[in-house]
Amino acid sequence: MSTSRIEHDFLGERALSDNVYYGIQTLRALENFRITGIPIRSEPLFVQALALVKKGAALANKELGVLDPAIADAIVGACDRVAAGEFDDQFLTDMIQGGAGTSVNMNANEVIANVALEALGHAKGEYQYCHPNNHVNCSQSTNDAYPTAFRIALNNKLVGYREALGALAEAFAAKGVEFHNVLKMGRTQLQDAVPMSMGDEFHAFATNLREELLRIDDSRRLISEINMGATAIGTGVNTPPGYAGLVTQHLRAVTGLDLLLAGDLIEATYDTGAYVQLSGVLKRTAVKLSKICNDLRLLSSGPRCGINEINLPALQPGSSIMPGKVNPVVPEVVNQTAFYVIGADLTVTMAAEAGQLQLNVMEPVISFALFTSISYLTNACDTLREKCVVGITANAAHAAALVHNSIGIVTQLNPVLGYEASASIAKEALATGKSVHDIAVTERQLLTQAKWDEIFTFENLIRPVFMQ
Amino acid sequence: MSTSRIEHDFLGERALSDNVYYGIQTLRALENFRITGIPIRSEPLFVQALALVKKGAALANKELGVLDPAIADAIVGACDRVAAGEFDDQFLTDMIQGGAGTSVNMNANEVIANVALEALGHAKGEYQYCHPNNHVNCSQSTNDAYPTAFRIALNNKLVGYREALGALAEAFAAKGVEFHNVLKMGRTQLQDAVPMSMGDEFHAFATNLREELLRIDDSRRLISEINMGATAIGTGVNTPPGYAGLVTQHLRAVTGLDLLLAGDLIEATYDTGAYVQLSGVLKRTAVKLSKICNDLRLLSSGPRCGINEINLPALQPGSSIMPGKVNPVVPEVVNQTAFYVIGADLTVTMAAEAGQLQLNVMEPVISFALFTSISYLTNACDTLREKCVVGITANAAHAAALVHNSIGIVTQLNPVLGYEASASIAKEALATGKSVHDIAVTERQLLTQAKWDEIFTFENLIRPVFMQ
Amino acid sequence: MSTSRIEHDFLGERALSDNVYYGIQTLRALENFRITGIPIRSEPLFVQALALVKKGAALANKELGVLDPAIADAIVGACDRVAAGEFDDQFLTDMIQGGAGTSVNMNANEVIANVALEALGHAKGEYQYCHPNNHVNCSQSTNDAYPTAFRIALNNKLVGYREALGALAEAFAAKGVEFHNVLKMGRTQLQDAVPMSMGDEFHAFATNLREELLRIDDSRRLISEINMGATAIGTGVNTPPGYAGLVTQHLRAVTGLDLLLAGDLIEATYDTGAYVQLSGVLKRTAVKLSKICNDLRLLSSGPRCGINEINLPALQPGSSIMPGKVNPVVPEVVNQTAFYVIGADLTVTMAAEAGQLQLNVMEPVISFALFTSISYLTNACDTLREKCVVGITANAAHAAALVHNSIGIVTQLNPVLGYEASASIAKEALATGKSVHDIAVTERQLLTQAKWDEIFTFENLIRPVFMQ
Amino acid sequence: MSTSRIEHDFLGERALSDNVYYGIQTLRALENFRITGIPIRSEPLFVQALALVKKGAALANKELGVLDPAIADAIVGACDRVAAGEFDDQFLTDMIQGGAGTSVNMNANEVIANVALEALGHAKGEYQYCHPNNHVNCSQSTNDAYPTAFRIALNNKLVGYREALGALAEAFAAKGVEFHNVLKMGRTQLQDAVPMSMGDEFHAFATNLREELLRIDDSRRLISEINMGATAIGTGVNTPPGYAGLVTQHLRAVTGLDLLLAGDLIEATYDTGAYVQLSGVLKRTAVKLSKICNDLRLLSSGPRCGINEINLPALQPGSSIMPGKVNPVVPEVVNQTAFYVIGADLTVTMAAEAGQLQLNVMEPVISFALFTSISYLTNACDTLREKCVVGITANAAHAAALVHNSIGIVTQLNPVLGYEASASIAKEALATGKSVHDIAVTERQLLTQAKWDEIFTFENLIRPVFMQ
Repeated sequence: MSTSRIEHDFLGERALSDNVYYGIQTLRALENFRITGIPIRSEPLFVQALALVKKGAALANKELGVLDPAIADAIVGACDRVAAGEFDDQFLTDMIQGGAGTSVNMNANEVIANVALEALGHAKGEYQYCHPNNHVNCSQSTNDAYPTAFRIALNNKLVGYREALGALAEAFAAKGVEFHNVLKMGRTQLQDAVPMSMGDEFHAFATNLREELLRIDDSRRLISEINMGATAIGTGVNTPPGYAGLVTQHLRAVTGLDLLLAGDLIEATYDTGAYVQLSGVLKRTAVKLSKICNDLRLLSSGPRCGINEINLPALQPGSSIMPGKVNPVVPEVVNQTAFYVIGADLTVTMAAEAGQLQLNVMEPVISFALFTSISYLTNACDTLREKCVVGITANAAHAAALVHNSIGIVTQLNPVLGYEASASIAKEALATGKSVHDIAVTERQLLTQAKWDEIFTFENLIRPVFMQ
Repeated sequence: MSTSRIEHDFLGERALSDNVYYGIQTLRALENFRITGIPIRSEPLFVQALALVKKGAALANKELGVLDPAIADAIVGACDRVAAGEFDDQFLTDMIQGGAGTSVNMNANEVIANVALEALGHAKGEYQYCHPNNHVNCSQSTNDAYPTAFRIALNNKLVGYREALGALAEAFAAKGVEFHNVLKMGRTQLQDAVPMSMGDEFHAFATNLREELLRIDDSRRLISEINMGATAIGTGVNTPPGYAGLVTQHLRAVTGLDLLLAGDLIEATYDTGAYVQLSGVLKRTAVKLSKICNDLRLLSSGPRCGINEINLPALQPGSSIMPGKVNPVVPEVVNQTAFYVIGADLTVTMAAEAGQLQLNVMEPVISFALFTSISYLTNACDTLREKCVVGITANAAHAAALVHNSIGIVTQLNPVLGYEASASIAKEALATGKSVHDIAVTERQLLTQAKWDEIFTFENLIRPVFMQ
Repeated sequence: MSTSRIEHDFLGERALSDNVYYGIQTLRALENFRITGIPIRSEPLFVQALALVKKGAALANKELGVLDPAIADAIVGACDRVAAGEFDDQFLTDMIQGGAGTSVNMNANEVIANVALEALGHAKGEYQYCHPNNHVNCSQSTNDAYPTAFRIALNNKLVGYREALGALAEAFAAKGVEFHNVLKMGRTQLQDAVPMSMGDEFHAFATNLREELLRIDDSRRLISEINMGATAIGTGVNTPPGYAGLVTQHLRAVTGLDLLLAGDLIEATYDTGAYVQLSGVLKRTAVKLSKICNDLRLLSSGPRCGINEINLPALQPGSSIMPGKVNPVVPEVVNQTAFYVIGADLTVTMAAEAGQLQLNVMEPVISFALFTSISYLTNACDTLREKCVVGITANAAHAAALVHNSIGIVTQLNPVLGYEASASIAKEALATGKSVHDIAVTERQLLTQAKWDEIFTFENLIRPVFMQ
Repeated sequence: MSTSRIEHDFLGERALSDNVYYGIQTLRALENFRITGIPIRSEPLFVQALALVKKGAALANKELGVLDPAIADAIVGACDRVAAGEFDDQFLTDMIQGGAGTSVNMNANEVIANVALEALGHAKGEYQYCHPNNHVNCSQSTNDAYPTAFRIALNNKLVGYREALGALAEAFAAKGVEFHNVLKMGRTQLQDAVPMSMGDEFHAFATNLREELLRIDDSRRLISEINMGATAIGTGVNTPPGYAGLVTQHLRAVTGLDLLLAGDLIEATYDTGAYVQLSGVLKRTAVKLSKICNDLRLLSSGPRCGINEINLPALQPGSSIMPGKVNPVVPEVVNQTAFYVIGADLTVTMAAEAGQLQLNVMEPVISFALFTSISYLTNACDTLREKCVVGITANAAHAAALVHNSIGIVTQLNPVLGYEASASIAKEALATGKSVHDIAVTERQLLTQAKWDEIFTFENLIRPVFMQ
């Protein structure tokens, strides 16, 4: 038999099932915000970070004597359980809400208060013994607690993302080694250019992505600046002296992160620059991943009527009516993920621009956009590595044949025959379909087969030595 | 005791639990695509539309004699059950996938085949009696079945959205009537301009949104163009003569929608123009909703240090440390929804641009973006109407007092006193803080109180009559 | 010897050279707004439209008796000269300004006043005889005159754009006819799919672009709604009775456009929906042009190591070190133009969202974005048509050889051999590099050469007839 | 009497006027690319950078013995003159072109060759003595010379931008000092929150922008990585041993910039990550500037019906029909500039994503977007500082009166009266319109006037001391 309790706030009273740890303000939020249907519990690291913030604040409040030690200890204990994920199912507020995160903050305050109350031997809702606002939220405002928790969660979430991206880069690097001896045509503007090693092409993908790891590190530094102690607008109203520094110190210990207190708390309370920067970094990686996937799809195009220099692993039948067709489904899904992330960056941009005066009230949609972007990118990196990159094989003979049959290799003859003679060979090759070799060596006898062989060694093709 | 069956495709064999209606290709998709974690079942209208497409195709195939009547009937029966939502839990493919929708199409083909098989007295997986490809997908390719189902789903989803948006517009119109007699200052560039009726201001919101209904109608027309019968690339390979027209006719009947067969099936098979157009329409509405919500937040700013002409309903306490603070949380969540939709429009744009040659393989992320945008906008319209607009009240006395205390009303004196005298009054008012009335009537005695009263009637302020 | 005159406004006095027709307010604008360095004279249609608006207003004011006939006639005469382009060099206000277009409106008012003054036998600056505000701007505000002129200019500018786009579509259609008999491989997901006619591929480009012409027509209808008579905020303050309808009528006559007076002038004065819609239409066309240019670049990739089905005209040497290299420079520049337009659409979106209360003050940057987008797109269409499309040639023999050497044609054998046998052929072809023909006819003798020939006719390949 | 010379390339011959220093390839570019009408000469730093690159290459080539010393010296001399701006009028290629910058590179090669030829005593066009390709472009490709010049130009352009932005930040900081003693209401979510110092508000703007200077420094480091010596695709084909390192060394000396040679030349030749990063930094600053300008417009709203805490300098009459109206035109133009920059960032994003294989051919539109964004932002910073920020004045008495009349100050009573009593006061104040002071001190006599005065000192309001 389920019973219920009555809670009140300054707008009135509401009944809550005794089963739930959240309270009246969360209940109102559940009714008020029904946009995405995706609850914040879908980001466990965010729930964890909220609990860590509350724990850090309780420790500082206790130390400064503004919170009864017994209550503080109960709150700390409750925070540990929440941080461990024990109450994730109580964090049901929609990912997008109005109120600049107040509902998320209150959801955490209420759940922690009720967990603490039970530990103290009280019933849920007996807030006189441990109050969501007066005790759990003590010396805090949504306007410092929410962004601090958000930044801690981002910081931790980026760790997993960085690993996935790094592993992907290394998978490309390994292919760079594997394909070192594969000769292939380099292409600019989709036109045949000059030869290269396929290993260098794949190694360049690794270089391209490794740079992103450094940018993630930049972002982590920027989002490590927090504004605890700012309370409502950065003036620190209702905080005891020394609180801001102390809570930051506790949070560093509690999270293990290199958190820093912002120098200008007024500015830090409304500023969303760090989110815009991080979103820009995610976007840049998305752009690079999309470009790389476009390349993988181009290079594996065919099998007969395209470039066909590489084979992607066959993961699933590609068509219901075309027997044997296999499609580059993994690069395709990564492209689409990239488009999602680029769109989400615009969401972040607009939300950041919409900040007004002492607060940016649009932070929840920024959280939603950044959390999903990081999740999707992490998944995309893992998928691309596991399901595609590690299984790529080279069609080495075909790739080399394309080079030897190309007109582009005529560039190699420039220093020996001069630009004019080379251009004349190119022109005839293009007009007639003949090979450069046949025109230069057989027909026109401009160089011997021996000289040709000397010039067209694999090493000289992929790392050309200058000769005159 | 749960048993399993073995299925195969041209890549090999896999075991499937006997509990599941989907087959080997869906299983591969579940393994290959783990990006968003959001399955297509989260869009029941999409699942329904897939079933309707399969039903229409089965009816046309039966009529043209390319599908055994008994099998066709079983497929039709299965489609009806799937369309009714009975098997939604079998549609687990991730919303973003590679393969241009092949996995979604096969998920539908496999579930329908197995439902039909059971109806025919066979076990799941006995595809010799009803095959996902040969029978359910008969005369189809993913490249026509998927976009057709997508368009049907969009069409139906827009119905609910249009209702929500229309109801919101009418709620504003009702406030327009309610506030007809409320005098207030009009503002341009955030500067006091000339007086107006608050009713006209709210009525303009209604006008602004009603226009969107017409744009939705445009979009519905454009997305009603389908390419059934195109199969792989628009040449109709593997379809019997007369199929394209006939299946379209059946689909019109089955869906009740005014579907049209595209005139150029090659083009229609890769074109995503209708999605870009629809996304643009959603974006335009988002822009308007965001502007309106910005206005509501401005007009309710205060209560003492802002404009404070209107009151939004108090839905939840606005602050844990500021007693009595109530925030415009609903307009804020609508702003954020708008930013999401504007970001999603960019995702659609990039995905559309990425189409290549005979197909746009990025259609799944377009579906994801459009479905979520429509859902979120629908929810935002309902929330804004129910939780905010219907409960807005006017601070009529304060609004009128602002007008009478303003300098802006001097414009009203232009035709009587001339621009020069009016400007001089304005200048003194600005410098001294005095009222226009005091300067014009009391101090300078440029007009009598009677004349003043004649000019400054409510009617003349909100719908000025020209006098010279 | 150059002399100067003194003008004043309510902020003070300034000297102006007697050579210039603009006045003190334009002078202030030139000093205040130095952002782009691009003057509004760079859009002659905008200058023209401003003059037409002023002409229409003067005619209505004269008819309603609020403007002295002699002054009205002088204004009309001045407007005709300005509209003819005689004074374009006096329109120097920067394309982006604050003030919601006030500076542009005053630039027009001042130039027209001074031109009229000279016609009336007065010196420039003798505004007692014809005043920029009192006479030229009579019954108007920037807030109706500016957007009306902007809409007229857009309307006219779209005519030229529509022509350029239409001509491009027809150029593709002509290639569709020319290449009708060219057999080529269709490709989905960059993988070989089934055969098609190159004529159909090019015809589809035409279809794709022809649809845009209808969307331009939609936009022209929407931007034909004007708000003349609204004045400051839509209440029509300071306009004589009947003015709004009358001036609209005159403007229809003067411009030859099907202009309509908005039904809700309060809404029409701040609404930017028509610009967002138009920008969306331009963006959609940009997306399509970019996709088409991507295709042209893919199809002409090579010449030896790519698809090489078509040749684009050689316009300029492609490389300084690679003899004979020619690049697809025109599609490339069109791609880039498309990216510009897509970026500009975002500018429009953000500017539209930033409107507040009774006005959208960001309209100048909307003008800048839309004018440049239309200009660049017009130029891009002309360039693509003249410098590229009309000169495209097909490598018919190579394209057909790709088809016959492909595995994709096995789909054609499905109805005859069955899917299983076809798949087996495909598998061997892929593994060994043999042709489908050799495996099916020569090795396995599954069908005769005669039957093969019957199936693989050109007509059957491009418009497959269903056989069982 | 003007004469002409004949030049040829591998596509044929063309006549050029003897007056022009550019040659046949530039002429072709002028005909092929007519999109924006804006020539590269509009970016003098770009022309200068091209000359510096050619100078560095000539010095390295001379030192390595691959360029005749006399020719090298003539090229160096010509580069010095071009870098000094003497031939800016010869750089007429459109800002957007196809060919990945080839036309811009050839424009530079041709002008420099002809200037050098005249210095050597030859006529323009006598390329046998100094050839655009063989000598000026020696050891280079467009694919390394163009991006290197672009990066040098960006680097130099950012210097001026950084200064403008820094000066703007300092102007805000100065206002922060000036307004230190101005008490005002802080606002969150546009609702009255708690009091603060206006000085802190303006100082926060300075903090907000100073952070951008560090981000610009990051960007400058990233764009200082160059790929000279990569030539066509990064393999260094046609460069003498040691060239890449040597030319980088010369370029460091010639430009005075801390340029670095990329570690992976294959990657560096196609990567556009540094541009995406820089564009993201510009966008972030645009977002911040827009937010600040929104705030300035909000804070100066009124004068009677808005917040009216500050006055912006009056720069121009704001309305033709509303006497005395002055608008915040400078913040408005900065908002619009920000929207432009945000749009341009999308252009950069799309162009970056469109890179394929060994090159990103879309670099010209990236140049166009970045150059204009930096120019416009620089102008916007200067305008905002000079025309607005330095002239802002505070309405101190009004701002303080708003605070004392607010309900928000009740938060200050929390620690003394308790939350419950405070909330009760707030409730009555909201309902009745009475002041907090009157209710607390006069009516309810909850505290003495003396205690009130102790709590509500200016210092305690802006930097609240915690009391219990």
